[in-house]
Amino acid sequence: MTITSFQPPTRTLMGPGPSDVSPRVLQALARPTIGHLDPEFVRMMEEMKQLLQYAFQTQNALTFPVSAPGSAGMETCFVNFVEPGDKVIVCINGVFGGRMKENVLRCGGVAVTVEDNWGEPVDPGKLEDALKAHPDAKLVAFVHAETSTGAQSDARTLVELAHRYDCLTIVDAVTSLAGTPLKVDEWEIDAIYSGTQKCLSAPPGLSPVSFSERAAEVVRGRTTQVQSWFLDLNLVMGYWGGGAKRAYHHTAPINNLYGLHEALVILQEEGLEQAWVRHAHHHAALRAGLEAMGLGFVVPEAARLPQLNAVTIPDGVDDAAVRGRLLEEFNLEIGAGLGGLAGKVWRIGLMGHACSARNVEYCLDALDRVLGGMDAPITRGVAVDAARRVLEGGAASAQRA
Amino acid sequence: MTITSFQPPTRTLMGPGPSDVSPRVLQALARPTIGHLDPEFVRMMEEMKQLLQYAFQTQNALTFPVSAPGSAGMETCFVNFVEPGDKVIVCINGVFGGRMKENVLRCGGVAVTVEDNWGEPVDPGKLEDALKAHPDAKLVAFVHAETSTGAQSDARTLVELAHRYDCLTIVDAVTSLAGTPLKVDEWEIDAIYSGTQKCLSAPPGLSPVSFSERAAEVVRGRTTQVQSWFLDLNLVMGYWGGGAKRAYHHTAPINNLYGLHEALVILQEEGLEQAWVRHAHHHAALRAGLEAMGLGFVVPEAARLPQLNAVTIPDGVDDAAVRGRLLEEFNLEIGAGLGGLAGKVWRIGLMGHACSARNVEYCLDALDRVLGGMDAPITRGVAVDAARRVLEGGAASAQRA
Repeated sequence: MTITSFQPPTRTLMGPGPSDVSPRVLQALARPTIGHLDPEFVRMMEEMKQLLQYAFQTQNALTFPVSAPGSAGMETCFVNFVEPGDKVIVCINGVFGGRMKENVLRCGGVAVTVEDNWGEPVDPGKLEDALKAHPDAKLVAFVHAETSTGAQSDARTLVELAHRYDCLTIVDAVTSLAGTPLKVDEWEIDAIYSGTQKCLSAPPGLSPVSFSERAAEVVRGRTTQVQSWFLDLNLVMGYWGGGAKRAYHHTAPINNLYGLHEALVILQEEGLEQAWVRHAHHHAALRAGLEAMGLGFVVPEAARLPQLNAVTIPDGVDDAAVRGRLLEEFNLEIGAGLGGLAGKVWRIGLMGHACSARNVEYCLDALDRVLGGMDAPITRGVAVDAARRVLEGGAASAQRA
Repeated sequence: MTITSFQPPTRTLMGPGPSDVSPRVLQALARPTIGHLDPEFVRMMEEMKQLLQYAFQTQNALTFPVSAPGSAGMETCFVNFVEPGDKVIVCINGVFGGRMKENVLRCGGVAVTVEDNWGEPVDPGKLEDALKAHPDAKLVAFVHAETSTGAQSDARTLVELAHRYDCLTIVDAVTSLAGTPLKVDEWEIDAIYSGTQKCLSAPPGLSPVSFSERAAEVVRGRTTQVQSWFLDLNLVMGYWGGGAKRAYHHTAPINNLYGLHEALVILQEEGLEQAWVRHAHHHAALRAGLEAMGLGFVVPEAARLPQLNAVTIPDGVDDAAVRGRLLEEFNLEIGAGLGGLAGKVWRIGLMGHACSARNVEYCLDALDRVLGGMDAPITRGVAVDAARRVLEGGAASAQRA
């Protein structure tokens, strides 16, 4: 056995995440490792909290990145809020709602599901019916931006409903954070988790979370111990919440945190609202190109996420062959369908650093060539121009789009 | 609020980890992010498994890095092996044995503890007494290398005892892996976890684990569901164990894995046995210097870990002031005591890339100056020369030491 250094190819990442990471963030990863209790590192942690508060639009003191990917952020929310026997209403309109239900069950909770078709947003009417039918429910959990379908739900309305029936809310914002409007305080979200490898364009491995004071009270007031030692907020807070004096809990992923810090500094430089506009603008261009080509969207227009475009694969086209050729010939990654949508859709991401005019045009051109070369039923040679017309319309028209 | 890019200072990391990361590993972190299902990434994952099998000295197919720090590796072992009501004998001779007990309880298990003084190795006689007294025990858990004290236990003997009484074993090798002999197959360890930020000198954030076929059978045969979705081996294996066809479970920490891969390539280049010799050699030098200075070790000689040296703080010396001056004036991090040893010991690490002649001399010189400047009761001006005499003796004398 002789294994040599790994030199990854340079891809263009337009799948459901990870997204293209900016050279500035890659450089930050390579800065010298320091200790997790070093005063300089502790200073960086304080900045990280502020930067995440800005990204989440919250003043929540309990805002930090969990030291593991988004799935662990999800689990942090459930293990801390769900005690055995607790009833949780889980809205399912894709893969990640289903995963939330799994989490409830593994915490010994009782899951009541509100189901919507994949590709549709969560229906507030169905949630209200469930809330009326289950007055003993303690929590409502839903996915703001379903990464498996590209559907966006009306988080503000769903939270308002949950509160009207005295339930706390757990919100999955893995794909929405920094890509589409999300206002934790204004919408009164209680517990929220996200990922770093979507619209923040940092490498995967961390999960930003935020908890309202009301939510923190619930965790402090638990009658049973949190089943996970690693994710127990009562312990993690001794490290992340401790001000100048911090207790060792686990060793934080130092260099990954450098990367996230840099990605958040970039977001702050651009401005959060401007990032939302940029995502909407490039989505409009991509959409124009895809539609000109004859490709259709899975999600109804009003619920479409700009940063994740689920496109129906034309009849007779070989899903895996197309994605394989895009990767081999164009170094371009787009996403496959998940679960019930496997083989039926492609998921084209326009996330964070990858959400650019260059990428929109590159992706449309590559699709045109690969699908055209396979004699797929598309209109050739028009997509890039259609996108360019939108791109040249500028940000103003994007805001109208 | 305007927060700028974070530029960490360049430290010399001689605490209990993270240890100094080699420039080669830092550069690997900065390579372009690719997808977690990219064929090139999957190829790298296969290499990673082989490299970890080498480091652990095992042929276990189920060998991979958990996507979170060592504490999550520990939790992976306990949530997968302990079902509610299972009795687990936990050997405690420091902080991390205590954390194992916490994990057992949070899984609904029954913990029987075998206690030894902090700084001593686990006593096999006491373990055997416990095994006799608890014939219904299912598991024995112990720490091979206690990071809180620097004591090494006789893993081979403890595993042999556990097996004689029909118990599986969970072994904490966070600090031992690649620093001191560890032979998973020869010693017949069933489940083992480690960390990346100790003697592998990769950044923190991943936890290499390995499970024997016998252990994997136990997980497959569980009657209850694993309480953690994120750490459920039955699910994780669909991603890490899947050969060419891999199922998405969570998004792996891509760039951190580049770093670990490079650190393991470096280990393979040096040779595992040579790495053990190097740690022993530099430990002997550090020890000669510390003893010449008049500082004493916490752990009896036969059980001392070369890579983690717990040194008794001399009477009247201000722990925090010394560490603060080492950091500020020398950019040198050494570790504080944990738990019952807080304020009583320093933990001086010689781990992985940080285990070098340069660091031994640098640390001794810095201690000499800082302690001397505080009029601490040490012999001044002799430590570096004492170490140098050992270093010049070369690797041959280190093997005898």
